[in-house]
Amino acid sequence: MPDFHLRRALLPTGWRDDVRVEVNEAGRIARVDVRGDDAGAHRLGFVVPGLPNLHSHTFQRAMAGLTERGGPGEDSFWSWREVMYDFVDRLTPDQVQAIAALAFCEMLESGFTTVAEFHYLHHAPDGRPYDDPAEMSARIAAAAHSTGIPLTLLPVFYRHGGFGPTPATDGQRRFLHDLDGYARLIERCGKIVASSPDAVLGVAPHSLRAATVEEIGELARLLEGAPVHIHVAEQEAEVEACLDILGARPVRHLLDSVEIDERWCLIHATHMDEGEIAELAGSGAVAGLCPVTEANLGDGIFPAPDFLAAGGAIGVGSDSNIRIDPADELRTLEYGQRLTRRRRNVLAGEGESSGGRLYRAALHGGARATGQPVGGIEVGARADFVELNDGSPLFIGREGDAVLDSWIFGGGPECVGEVWVGGRRVVEGGRALARAFVERDYRAAVGELRP
Amino acid sequence: MPDFHLRRALLPTGWRDDVRVEVNEAGRIARVDVRGDDAGAHRLGFVVPGLPNLHSHTFQRAMAGLTERGGPGEDSFWSWREVMYDFVDRLTPDQVQAIAALAFCEMLESGFTTVAEFHYLHHAPDGRPYDDPAEMSARIAAAAHSTGIPLTLLPVFYRHGGFGPTPATDGQRRFLHDLDGYARLIERCGKIVASSPDAVLGVAPHSLRAATVEEIGELARLLEGAPVHIHVAEQEAEVEACLDILGARPVRHLLDSVEIDERWCLIHATHMDEGEIAELAGSGAVAGLCPVTEANLGDGIFPAPDFLAAGGAIGVGSDSNIRIDPADELRTLEYGQRLTRRRRNVLAGEGESSGGRLYRAALHGGARATGQPVGGIEVGARADFVELNDGSPLFIGREGDAVLDSWIFGGGPECVGEVWVGGRRVVEGGRALARAFVERDYRAAVGELRP
Repeated sequence: MPDFHLRRALLPTGWRDDVRVEVNEAGRIARVDVRGDDAGAHRLGFVVPGLPNLHSHTFQRAMAGLTERGGPGEDSFWSWREVMYDFVDRLTPDQVQAIAALAFCEMLESGFTTVAEFHYLHHAPDGRPYDDPAEMSARIAAAAHSTGIPLTLLPVFYRHGGFGPTPATDGQRRFLHDLDGYARLIERCGKIVASSPDAVLGVAPHSLRAATVEEIGELARLLEGAPVHIHVAEQEAEVEACLDILGARPVRHLLDSVEIDERWCLIHATHMDEGEIAELAGSGAVAGLCPVTEANLGDGIFPAPDFLAAGGAIGVGSDSNIRIDPADELRTLEYGQRLTRRRRNVLAGEGESSGGRLYRAALHGGARATGQPVGGIEVGARADFVELNDGSPLFIGREGDAVLDSWIFGGGPECVGEVWVGGRRVVEGGRALARAFVERDYRAAVGELRP
Repeated sequence: MPDFHLRRALLPTGWRDDVRVEVNEAGRIARVDVRGDDAGAHRLGFVVPGLPNLHSHTFQRAMAGLTERGGPGEDSFWSWREVMYDFVDRLTPDQVQAIAALAFCEMLESGFTTVAEFHYLHHAPDGRPYDDPAEMSARIAAAAHSTGIPLTLLPVFYRHGGFGPTPATDGQRRFLHDLDGYARLIERCGKIVASSPDAVLGVAPHSLRAATVEEIGELARLLEGAPVHIHVAEQEAEVEACLDILGARPVRHLLDSVEIDERWCLIHATHMDEGEIAELAGSGAVAGLCPVTEANLGDGIFPAPDFLAAGGAIGVGSDSNIRIDPADELRTLEYGQRLTRRRRNVLAGEGESSGGRLYRAALHGGARATGQPVGGIEVGARADFVELNDGSPLFIGREGDAVLDSWIFGGGPECVGEVWVGGRRVVEGGRALARAFVERDYRAAVGELRP
């Protein structure tokens, strides 16, 4: 591994110039010298730790632009879900792998350097398991490996169709397991993950609609200490149904029924009352926010000021992958607050700008939620570097957090130059090194997949 | 001029394949043949008419990322304005021109092919006019000319500091004119515009704070038939002050005091009651929406469903240029509605997707507001073509409005391939042809302009 010389870098201690970083053979940071020299080092410009993407359904990237129609009053999250089900009815393992690989390239190119893939498409189109029950998980792991993005694999447990529980529908037949089947899936996924030094395995009950709290408790015991992710309280209709049928709001029901701690990542958690906010924030669980998808799906706005004030941990995910861009996720999070509160810099902190505070929060929460050794340029962390195009006019004269703000509020993927993961280069000149063959495979696998 | 062959194009009659377009020496479309051949023609892929950017303050692009700090409760539109005033205290004509040219490159690269520049920075730092009172206007026109973007020049009339009126402040000294001084500015700008076949001149009372309705009436008579643009009802504090001091809400006051018709573009118009919405929509005036800036400044959310239902005309502008991307403007407009109404596709129309309806609306409203011969690929219009990268995986299998939706909701500037204005190429491979020298000048002029 080469040493690295970072002309300006965001360290846990703040912004520093001329940082020399030594990386060991495992791709971890072995030493960080502020005011180090650049002799023999690979030189980078403005460098930030890559952001973990804590929630993705990669296959949905191929749906981008196909569900933006339907007159007022006719369309909602639930009709979007019907389109999505229709789409997944037909996907083959080759297509799942090809779409995932392209989405992973786009993640790396925009500054995401780890991804937690929450994947629920397990079975063949007829609803029966493939010969290898982890066929789809293996394809996702292969896609990640081919692009160089470290993966937190979250095979989803999906058993029921709604609160009660009610039976699953035909549209859900490719997702379903009982507890024994899921345990076998997890065992097989353990082998897939063991073959990759950068992969982590977690469990993922889909939601309180698809799993009972008793089942969720069982799942959490399957893998000790591993991440547990679950969708919760994304839609108001879901909150109402949960209250009706289970007698409590979703986050409340979860907090009261299962021991929620730092292993947990609650995806969305959009609709919470004061008590839920305080208790979730205190639990150490991460709120997994997906602001761009939540805007696209009309979910609502996460109570970020109260949750952060209560010490809650947050991270961001690209979820439906309608767009893939960490900068867009962070600014959409802040802009939702500004538009409804009619103030600026709602989420800025003490001595931290809006972009600075949100970037740091998403590093910490993302590291916790993905269970990966990431989140900072410091000894022991994986050497995941995102170099911003400091030669771009956008960054002239920018110092400290204004670098992050110029990227997050003023730019996007075009601001990313080189990306290194575990000390290996994966993006150069803004393009993933894997992109050429990934695009070719995508065309071959997905070209015929018309709406 | 070459003929053009558009493999697929958005025409006023809908999406058509194999469109041959003949362009005359003036850069106007002379003939459109659906199912035309491509012999001897310049071939383009997926083509849409370029979008007019109806509201820009280009110099603010150099501030991107500098105002995203300030704790909760401390920051607002008004503190942003203080930072902006501090910034403009120091700008020189060279800097104004260099920043404008770079912003114009970014506009072309992202798909804006006309810009209305609403510019209020007229005088020297000491508040006295330059030797040429139109020095700054001339610099903006020069910047536009150098990049190839057609300009609607809107020199701003700014006289007072607030409703009442109250005296202008020291921070406003570079903006100020009396009516005679402004008439001389307009006369001089008429000469600047006359030297460019693609330029249009309009008048722009800054706001009801900076101009009385009597003055606004005078200004509208200065240039018969020309565009008249004014900021209105952007901030709630402004609405309250207007109601307090002038006895009416801003849009109401304007509608009751001045004859508002199709010449007019009311920028923002965020805060309107039902009566204002109905009357403004019926007037033929364009509501000039700037959704990204309005999110950044915490202005609030335009009542788009009611305004469109009442037949109102809208267009979009990049305003503060915190980002420059028509796709972002349109999706932010739709997402603001989705987040607050908790539904999807709020602004989709009959047989039109969200992106399709908004793109068409912004073409029509933008053409009206800029006073330019643009808005459609049809005989008589300027040949302004934005070619989307139809080779991108994002567009595989996309038909009709799904092409627009994939760009607007799923992409950004990276979707733009070639851009042609008046039949001349201005962007190739996503980069403005002028960018190299524009960036060099920017560095020279702006490199020392640190916050």
